[in-house]
Order: sequence, then C-alpha cells, then structure tokens
Amino acid sequence: MKLSEAELAPRDFRSMIRRGEWTRETTMACRGYAQANVTILPKNYAYDFLVFCNRNQRPCPVIDITEAGDPHPRRVAPEADLRTDLGRYKVFKDGELVAEPTDIKDYWQDDLVGFLIGCSFSFEWLLRAANVKFRYIGVFISNIQCEPAGCFSGHMVVTGRLFESAYDAIRAIQITTRCPAVHGPPVHVGDPAIIGINFFYPYNSKDISQADFDARSDIAPQPGEIAMFWGCGITTEMTVKKAKPPLMITQGDVNLLVTDRLTEELAIL
Amino acid sequence: MKLSEAELAPRDFRSMIRRGEWTRETTMACRGYAQANVTILPKNYAYDFLVFCNRNQRPCPVIDITEAGDPHPRRVAPEADLRTDLGRYKVFKDGELVAEPTDIKDYWQDDLVGFLIGCSFSFEWLLRAANVKFRYIGVFISNIQCEPAGCFSGHMVVTGRLFESAYDAIRAIQITTRCPAVHGPPVHVGDPAIIGINFFYPYNSKDISQADFDARSDIAPQPGEIAMFWGCGITTEMTVKKAKPPLMITQGDVNLLVTDRLTEELAIL
Repeated sequence: MKLSEAELAPRDFRSMIRRGEWTRETTMACRGYAQANVTILPKNYAYDFLVFCNRNQRPCPVIDITEAGDPHPRRVAPEADLRTDLGRYKVFKDGELVAEPTDIKDYWQDDLVGFLIGCSFSFEWLLRAANVKFRYIGVFISNIQCEPAGCFSGHMVVTGRLFESAYDAIRAIQITTRCPAVHGPPVHVGDPAIIGINFFYPYNSKDISQADFDARSDIAPQPGEIAMFWGCGITTEMTVKKAKPPLMITQGDVNLLVTDRLTEELAIL
Repeated sequence: MKLSEAELAPRDFRSMIRRGEWTRETTMACRGYAQANVTILPKNYAYDFLVFCNRNQRPCPVIDITEAGDPHPRRVAPEADLRTDLGRYKVFKDGELVAEPTDIKDYWQDDLVGFLIGCSFSFEWLLRAANVKFRYIGVFISNIQCEPAGCFSGHMVVTGRLFESAYDAIRAIQITTRCPAVHGPPVHVGDPAIIGINFFYPYNSKDISQADFDARSDIAPQPGEIAMFWGCGITTEMTVKKAKPPLMITQGDVNLLVTDRLTEELAIL
C-alpha cells in the first residue's frame, strides 16, 4: 500500500522531491512536522533582511539561517539541501521573476544565505488535532505596514481562515499562541476590511477572486463564521522583490521545505 | 515626598541618569517597565551578532536594533539616548575593558549599532505581582554552550533564583514563559551542578562566593528551596569580548536601560 504524503517521514518526502517525483503542494505532507518558507539572498543583503525579520516577527519568524554558500539548514533539517529539496522555486533577478525551476543548482553561489521562516501550514495540524473547525481561504496582501529595515519595506501578507464558531476561533488563538516559530497568534480577527481585505463583506462569495494568491472560489464564507488572519512568510517575497536585489530565490507558493522538527518541538508552551 | 526609583516614569528616571544623578543599580527602577541590556558594536560585526542572537534566543532576545550611528532605540524607547541614559558603561577595545564611564559621548561613532536585549530584572516584577516567593542569587557562567555564529561563540551566562517551594517554581515557569522578550522560561531547574554551577551542592553556603558576578554572600540556600536559572544578556558581553572587536560598549552589570514598554506589553500571552 502506498503511503499518503501525510504518512511520510520528512527525509523520505524530501528524497522524493529531490528525485523530481513531487512538485505539488506540501500542505498535507509529513503530519506534524514544521514546514518552512525559504528566502535565499546574497550575503550583502542578509543583515538588513534579518533586521526586517526581527522587527516583523509575526509574518517573519526566522527558524534557521545557513552560512553563506552552505545549502544545509543545520538547525532544523541538517540533511536537507536547499538547492534540490523544494518542489518548485521562484528565481527573481532585480525584482523580476525570471524562472520557476524544480531545483536551483544552476543558480547557486558561494555568497548565498538561506533564511528559513515558519509556515502556517505547520500549525494547521495542531488545529486539526484539537478538532478545531476551520477552512483555509488563501493568502492576501493586507494594508498592515511592516516595520521597515534598510532597503526592505512593504505590506504584510497574511493567510486567512474561517472558523465555524467563536469557540473554534478562541481555541485557535490559544493553540497558535503556543507556536511563535510558525507565526504565533493571528494578527487580526473579525471584519477583514479593517486590514484592507474586502472580498467577502457583506457576505458575497462572488468577490472571493480578490484573494491575492491561492484562494479558491469554492470556499464562500457562511453567516456566523469568524475570519482570522495570520502573518505569512510570503511577506518576505513581496518585500524583498520591491528592493530589487540582483538575485533572490524563494519557494514556489505551495512548495515549502519540510523540516525534521515537529511543530510541537518548536512550541514554547 | 521624594519618589522611590520604583515610582518614577521611565523618561524621568532616564533624565535623572542623563543628569548624572543616578549611577546605582536599576534593579528596582520603574516598576513594571522592561529593562534592556545594551550591546553596541561597529556595523561590520552586526550581522554575525544578530545571527548569534537568533540562534540563542533564551539568553539573547533582541527587542530593538538601532540604525548605524543613531543613538535612539525607536521601537522601545524613542526618546532615550544610548550615549547618556545608562548609569554606567563598560568600554572594551580589542576585547579588553578600557573604561567604565557614565556616558559614552566620547566613544560614539557613525558606524555603531545598538542592540537592546531583554533583561530578567523585568520579569521579577511579574513574579512579585503574583506573590511568587523567590530570592535572586546572582549571575553565573554555565557550562551550556551557545550555538556559535560567525566569530561569536561561548558559554551561556545565566541568572539564578531560589524558590521557596515547588509551587513557587512552577508558577515562575508559567509566568516567565509568557515573556520570551525578557528571556522566557528558565533554561534549568534543579541541581545547578548539571549546568556547571557547583556553589551550593550539597547545601554549603560557604561556596556561594563562586557566583561569578554579583552574587551576594548573605544569601545561602535553604533546604527545600528549588534553584532555577534563566538565560542572561551578559552572555553577549562574554561572547563578544572573546571575539575582540576593535570597539564594544555594554551597560555596567547593574545599569540597564529602562524602556518605555511595560514587560506586560512585551508578553506574548
């Protein structure tokens, strides 16, 4: 019997990706293991980037930093290789998307530093394990201004989820608070318009296409549902792209790096 | 009636320091406000230092980073001036202590970056407010190795406290867990020898002088007390000194910067 991706161990799942056998979304991969956004930058951008992340910890919690030229994230996935272990990459030159390869061996340089940033896919397993009733509705660009640092500034990107009841929403705040490494508590609850997201108020499913990245039109909000939004690692892509560095590489939108650390290991309580 | 230092607002307390009227310890200053360790370094050391802090968040939680040459910590105390608002400084050149002035105007340079790092003095107010029974016993160099970064490596410095009962110790773990910005939960509970601190096992008060920095010989442990140790910002002084940068400036051991942020504001839950 073939194992589903949720059943695979991180090293086996990464091997499958390395062999080119998995380029699809990682959302449901390796149940319980933390997944990471990856932002790869030349070393001379690394300080400003790290200050930016320090000042904006909800969207950009840094869980590992590689040494320049070293493709192995030694804290959270020492056997992983940032050049091959993501199913899809996005390569930006001077802020422009120039390629979406399935490995970045041809782009690797000795001065590249990889930053691993927690991903909210990680805490979804914890919500499910607590029987919290929710639906993921996509990634949005909010009107929340990040605190700038050096050449980096921009709006906070967020992920949205709809909770079936107030009880579910409160439980989700409690559970995600335990995990600042994967974005921690939400940055907003209630009317999405307050953070510049207008797609479903008043309840109007036809506008759901305004979801900026991967929102699916088959999820329309129901009366009584409560919307909550969490900081999202794609914030770094939006912010760094604006600064037009000669080279930046990120994961494909749904192609995160699966680490060897359980989300529960990264929890603070 | 003269206000005690605990009653003063942070800006008034800092003004007093700026006028040269307070060079004593800040331990009890400005009840409820977070205090910060300050490490000032030339910009070309800043990246490695920030990576070090990211990898060692228990001793080195970064709560503010100034722009190079700007003496104002704009996130947590925008009116404060890092050149004048600490009662005592330590100036190191090539790793050697060369002066302990009450301001650093003569040492200030356009390439200096200030890092503010949470201080455990901050959470002691929260313990007192919860009626937790404890005694502070000093600062020690543990045998815990920090995760190195670039030129920075070394042992973790910790602060020690004795708790009257297991209940008090458990409450203290719960309360400090809420505040990762001021070191979060302890790094050790129980036998201090396990982390290389041998001064009071078996209960032997004559050895308390081995406390490395400011332990006072009038506090001997009592049977039944539980020892706990927290990461301490002085870790950065020990670590950076070893790397011998041309210039490093830190606070005097008991002369922290009082910020405008309540410790409760920095709490995560």
